[in-house]
Amino acid sequence: MNTNTLLNEIKDIVGTAGVLLGDDVTSRSDSWPPTGGCQAKAIIRPASTQEVSEVLKLCHAAGQSVVTHGGLTGLVGGARAGADDIVLSLERMHAMEPVDSINRTVTVEAGVPLQRVHEAAEDVDLLFPLDLGARGSCTIGGNIATNAGGNSVIRYGMIRDQLLGVEAVLADGTIISSLNGVIKNNTGYDLKQLFIGSEGTLGIVTRAVLRLRPLPRSSNTALIAIENFNQVGSFLRDMDSALGGTLSAFEVMWNDFYTTIIGDGSKHGSPLGPEHQFYVLLESTGGHEDSDKFRFEGALEEAFESELIVDAVIAQSKQQREDLWAIRDDIPGLAKKLFPSIVFDISLGIPQMDDYVNEVRKQMTDRWPDSRMVTFGHLGDGNIHLALTVGSHEPSEVQAVETIVYEALGRRQGVISAEHGIGLDKRAYLQHSRSENEIALMKTLKHVLDPKNILNPGKIFAPSEGNQS
Amino acid sequence: MNTNTLLNEIKDIVGTAGVLLGDDVTSRSDSWPPTGGCQAKAIIRPASTQEVSEVLKLCHAAGQSVVTHGGLTGLVGGARAGADDIVLSLERMHAMEPVDSINRTVTVEAGVPLQRVHEAAEDVDLLFPLDLGARGSCTIGGNIATNAGGNSVIRYGMIRDQLLGVEAVLADGTIISSLNGVIKNNTGYDLKQLFIGSEGTLGIVTRAVLRLRPLPRSSNTALIAIENFNQVGSFLRDMDSALGGTLSAFEVMWNDFYTTIIGDGSKHGSPLGPEHQFYVLLESTGGHEDSDKFRFEGALEEAFESELIVDAVIAQSKQQREDLWAIRDDIPGLAKKLFPSIVFDISLGIPQMDDYVNEVRKQMTDRWPDSRMVTFGHLGDGNIHLALTVGSHEPSEVQAVETIVYEALGRRQGVISAEHGIGLDKRAYLQHSRSENEIALMKTLKHVLDPKNILNPGKIFAPSEGNQS
Repeated sequence: MNTNTLLNEIKDIVGTAGVLLGDDVTSRSDSWPPTGGCQAKAIIRPASTQEVSEVLKLCHAAGQSVVTHGGLTGLVGGARAGADDIVLSLERMHAMEPVDSINRTVTVEAGVPLQRVHEAAEDVDLLFPLDLGARGSCTIGGNIATNAGGNSVIRYGMIRDQLLGVEAVLADGTIISSLNGVIKNNTGYDLKQLFIGSEGTLGIVTRAVLRLRPLPRSSNTALIAIENFNQVGSFLRDMDSALGGTLSAFEVMWNDFYTTIIGDGSKHGSPLGPEHQFYVLLESTGGHEDSDKFRFEGALEEAFESELIVDAVIAQSKQQREDLWAIRDDIPGLAKKLFPSIVFDISLGIPQMDDYVNEVRKQMTDRWPDSRMVTFGHLGDGNIHLALTVGSHEPSEVQAVETIVYEALGRRQGVISAEHGIGLDKRAYLQHSRSENEIALMKTLKHVLDPKNILNPGKIFAPSEGNQS
Repeated sequence: MNTNTLLNEIKDIVGTAGVLLGDDVTSRSDSWPPTGGCQAKAIIRPASTQEVSEVLKLCHAAGQSVVTHGGLTGLVGGARAGADDIVLSLERMHAMEPVDSINRTVTVEAGVPLQRVHEAAEDVDLLFPLDLGARGSCTIGGNIATNAGGNSVIRYGMIRDQLLGVEAVLADGTIISSLNGVIKNNTGYDLKQLFIGSEGTLGIVTRAVLRLRPLPRSSNTALIAIENFNQVGSFLRDMDSALGGTLSAFEVMWNDFYTTIIGDGSKHGSPLGPEHQFYVLLESTGGHEDSDKFRFEGALEEAFESELIVDAVIAQSKQQREDLWAIRDDIPGLAKKLFPSIVFDISLGIPQMDDYVNEVRKQMTDRWPDSRMVTFGHLGDGNIHLALTVGSHEPSEVQAVETIVYEALGRRQGVISAEHGIGLDKRAYLQHSRSENEIALMKTLKHVLDPKNILNPGKIFAPSEGNQS
């Protein structure tokens, strides 16, 4: 079928407003930060699951590749489209059912932005615990397709753990609707797991039932200085124990990160001196202000007494809490000082972490004496970020850095993408984290669910491989 | 290949001690409670993942069906074997690596009993939170294959949420080893999800990396009386909020359950009078004895003041705590009084629950005026049990009861198996909880992963269907 015929048939399904062409396509972006320049043939904007299904049936029959777009805040090129692709945007599918405040669930369409879910939950004193910087733009569908993590994983888990039901459309248009709003469901295979984190390659998520939690009534936050990595690990373990189920953040900044952020020209104060090896941002949230505070301060006191920690500042107001978080979250400030930077999002076992960071740092300075590296991240989840600069963004230099970072990681059974996914940008390194047999099984699943390789082709695996099984 | 040839080849792999025949097979059981009478041709007992792989390669080539055996405590006939099957028992695969107390993980073989994991974790002040009555016999492999739930789901989730890595062997002998011990891993498809809860039909789980948690330092327990179901829902919500992340059990007994258990000939005391509509067993576990107790009692006080609850008894000692739990857990006592009983394990939304229970009760007494029904369960997870008796265990009568229970459930988007799985015993009712498209996709997965239908054939789906795709 030629493209015009296909687009006309699609127009019959989604209406004229549902098909964007020409400048309306190229003025849009398909990556982050948004810069325009989407190369797709057309952007299709269905208004319902039924329309998604009918559009996919046509694309499947025509062998037309489809790249799904949500909020476009992904960091690995997972939404990039080429001149042969059409884009299917879920932007018109943003309906939300009312929150069920007894069952503590809400059913939403895939195009709903994360922040709208936060707001709807908070209106009835509930919490949707997935939270990340892109909350205003990213969508629930994209969050599901990438198994988003973010700031509260240590307490609540990734979005995989917040999903009770998922509705998705397969490559051939079949609708798989598993929208029971129940926590326990052992009736055959848990099909929703297929779609979570599969980056739009196995199906297009159209709706979901989200699990909501009680809105915390109290929070306690502190910035803490520690002198060696083993003590960081012990402190994590002790806090997780002492704070019961209320520990909600355990973010660690290595000295190089902290001193870079609070150094020359910084807009931040310096709540603790720059001389410590590690800085932990610790937070707990709970249901009872007095007893939560008592417990939090008692836990810190114990840590002082056992000499695990050497200094600490406890936020005494909402403003002070925000100031502490602003240091950890100042990625724009970091990007300015480490320019051009190459950023990694990796996971590995906490016992291997110190040695790993030291090895990468040494290899970097051996090869590029003027390179800089800073380390920080969600250590409570075994997930850290490395930001490095070698003063250049030449592809060969970037690749050399990637090789150092990923090879040292592969030797320690680490994973090359904790949160961000594989997309296009990391697919060359997938074998550092996954075995041949694992990758072969992934391709088998891809082939059986999408035999014509029309769904986000070339993402996770290279295109020629994705076609085979 | 004839059976003797196949068994001889298997013997070359697993050794003579690895193959049981004749009386050694029939004296064993394949269901719960154990009664002997396994009909399989042989029981194969490999000692390593490699041996499982080699045995499966042979079985795959020969088209020989394989039923995997763990602790044999399943309740839906998922381990039942026929005269054409061989059984593959993981009983010799019970190695455990030492607990990694910094990363808080432990890697175990599938045949390790759940209780050994509890003990190894507690030795280093950690907790493996999956817990169920069969803890002494059930194995980690079986727990994974059935996505086991149990007593602490409200706080920690099912075993799906406790697994960082899984190693499994596919039908053709391919080993899929995903044993990273990290919490966050978005590097392509999360293959372990395929094997969790698939009841041995998609692969045989051989090893796993389990996530451990801090061992709680305190627990608070109370039995509470409530007069109507809406208040039960509100009380759940309030306690989940007030107790922060420390709420660890919210078990509900309907009046019919409570009065049956503490009635004539009971070995239990009667901590609360028999006149209330609902009895809630509430527990919180935390990291700080004083502040946890203060918060627990404060939360109950608030509930009294807002007239959600009408009476409560708080356990003042370990013995009192055990006595309260003994009422909830007295399933043997229940089985004696409701003989012969038919037991269900269902999930549905809390807003639908009261109406559902009332409808089933009415239909039961309309049809069998002398029938009895009691209701109880993990209400905090949306999961309740119904135990019914019509004074007979005739298949036609049982089927009539099942039809009443499941049809009323299907109309409310409930699920017919919250924890126990489908196995053989519930497969006739799968369509009450899963759509045609869902079941078709399950069969597609089954067919691609096990094209010769050798892995636990006939479980979840009827055999003839399982062969097709």
